[in-house]
Amino acid sequence: MKRVKNISEARLLLRQIRKDNRSVGFVPTMGNLHQGHISLLGKAKQENDVCIVSIFVNPTQFGAGEDFKKYPRTLDDDIKKLSEAGADIIFVPEIEEIYTSTTNVFVDEEQKNKHLCGAFRPGHFNGVLTIVLKLFNIFNPDRAYFGMKDYQQYVLIRDMVNSLNLGTEIIPYPIVREKDGLAMSSRNAYLTMEQRSRALSINRSLKKIKTAFDNGIRSVQELKGLALKELQEQNIYVQYVEILNDTSLNSVKIAGDSDLVAIAAFCDQVRLIDNLIL
Amino acid sequence: MKRVKNISEARLLLRQIRKDNRSVGFVPTMGNLHQGHISLLGKAKQENDVCIVSIFVNPTQFGAGEDFKKYPRTLDDDIKKLSEAGADIIFVPEIEEIYTSTTNVFVDEEQKNKHLCGAFRPGHFNGVLTIVLKLFNIFNPDRAYFGMKDYQQYVLIRDMVNSLNLGTEIIPYPIVREKDGLAMSSRNAYLTMEQRSRALSINRSLKKIKTAFDNGIRSVQELKGLALKELQEQNIYVQYVEILNDTSLNSVKIAGDSDLVAIAAFCDQVRLIDNLIL
Repeated sequence: MKRVKNISEARLLLRQIRKDNRSVGFVPTMGNLHQGHISLLGKAKQENDVCIVSIFVNPTQFGAGEDFKKYPRTLDDDIKKLSEAGADIIFVPEIEEIYTSTTNVFVDEEQKNKHLCGAFRPGHFNGVLTIVLKLFNIFNPDRAYFGMKDYQQYVLIRDMVNSLNLGTEIIPYPIVREKDGLAMSSRNAYLTMEQRSRALSINRSLKKIKTAFDNGIRSVQELKGLALKELQEQNIYVQYVEILNDTSLNSVKIAGDSDLVAIAAFCDQVRLIDNLIL
Repeated sequence: MKRVKNISEARLLLRQIRKDNRSVGFVPTMGNLHQGHISLLGKAKQENDVCIVSIFVNPTQFGAGEDFKKYPRTLDDDIKKLSEAGADIIFVPEIEEIYTSTTNVFVDEEQKNKHLCGAFRPGHFNGVLTIVLKLFNIFNPDRAYFGMKDYQQYVLIRDMVNSLNLGTEIIPYPIVREKDGLAMSSRNAYLTMEQRSRALSINRSLKKIKTAFDNGIRSVQELKGLALKELQEQNIYVQYVEILNDTSLNSVKIAGDSDLVAIAAFCDQVRLIDNLIL
């Protein structure tokens, strides 16, 4: 496994890979890797000749008062995991390599940004899109892999590929969960045992909605009520429970097949998200 | 010369070109081609194995009340010129091929956009950057060629390449002028003989500034005054006469070597721009 710090070095490696006509799979991450990330790499390995993983805690996707500074950084551990999982190249740039003092052009999305997490984290997704585009422009991957836990992120990156005519195929991967059902997330590391036990109500409330939907309930108000009750009982502060069209991200009033159910909630100070498709 | 309408067809052609390890030069245009465009193509031919010219009147760079609808479209003539000049591929897409109904991600620049033309044409340069990025993503050119008449456009595209880590080298080309000194522009076609004669004062006023600068005058106020007087005498309505740093596009008070002198002015209804580097 080769570790690369500089864009110029990355470009040189990629030139040789392209010369050899080898396909490239790419998994962008912010490090603190868990089984979700490793699963993305596993799928990338199945589908490409060369697999690249980036580790970069991207400052432009954190808002004021968010956890950029304390975001868990576990590089040695991450490198060990990626080496064992068979990554070919890992890209670990410094912030100054990615954002120079003259960076003045960014990516901008203003429609779907208004929904879900975008409504509560202004600038977040434009930061995500900008860093993903920059990384795509460095590696020009054939395929890039994104977990569906960050469903809105997945939709927006897919939109960016379509809107800006990028040549990369976006491959979604199902949410990877702990045995107890908690969606894997780097932010789970912030949870105490007691908080974690209460946090399970997030996934449980999604399942309640799914069961009710399967039993014929279609009223979004009624379905949302089931989740809100469950979360309230566990003293989980709900930022949103939404049922929306899985592509436009517009809210629906009557739930239907393939609609997205998405939750963002605070377990004390820790913000967690989860979702499922009906 | 091969004419391509669809993105998918363009990608197929490019795949073969890349397989053959041939370099790609790209000249994006809005058609109505003049000697300025042909010179860009000439330089591209010197420096690349394959030369691609796009012709697309990009709606997102025209503001409300601007001349999108009446912008001169002379496709048959353009094709003849490009064939004679030795273009290998011309890309002439329909609007719907480039902007689908679901296009929701754009490029955004907010700093240098505030200067020069950007201040008077809100959204114009974000429209330019978005279409250029889309075309770059389709053709992935080694080099792309831009005339320095649109100096702010050249600076912003160079910034986009740096900010978004694009692999394309941006090559500027000096302003190409008519024998009488008028900077070549598709919009010159709007001018009557009488207007055209008055429009020559734009280039003349730039030259007056240059001569005064060469004679030791450094006060921007004084230098600008020379141009304003010249233009006023010809009944040219001045949108701006500015002297600025050629990279930051920030105004200067004392002119120095390599500063940019830029003018935008209306000859009756026709908006014209011109510039020179001190």
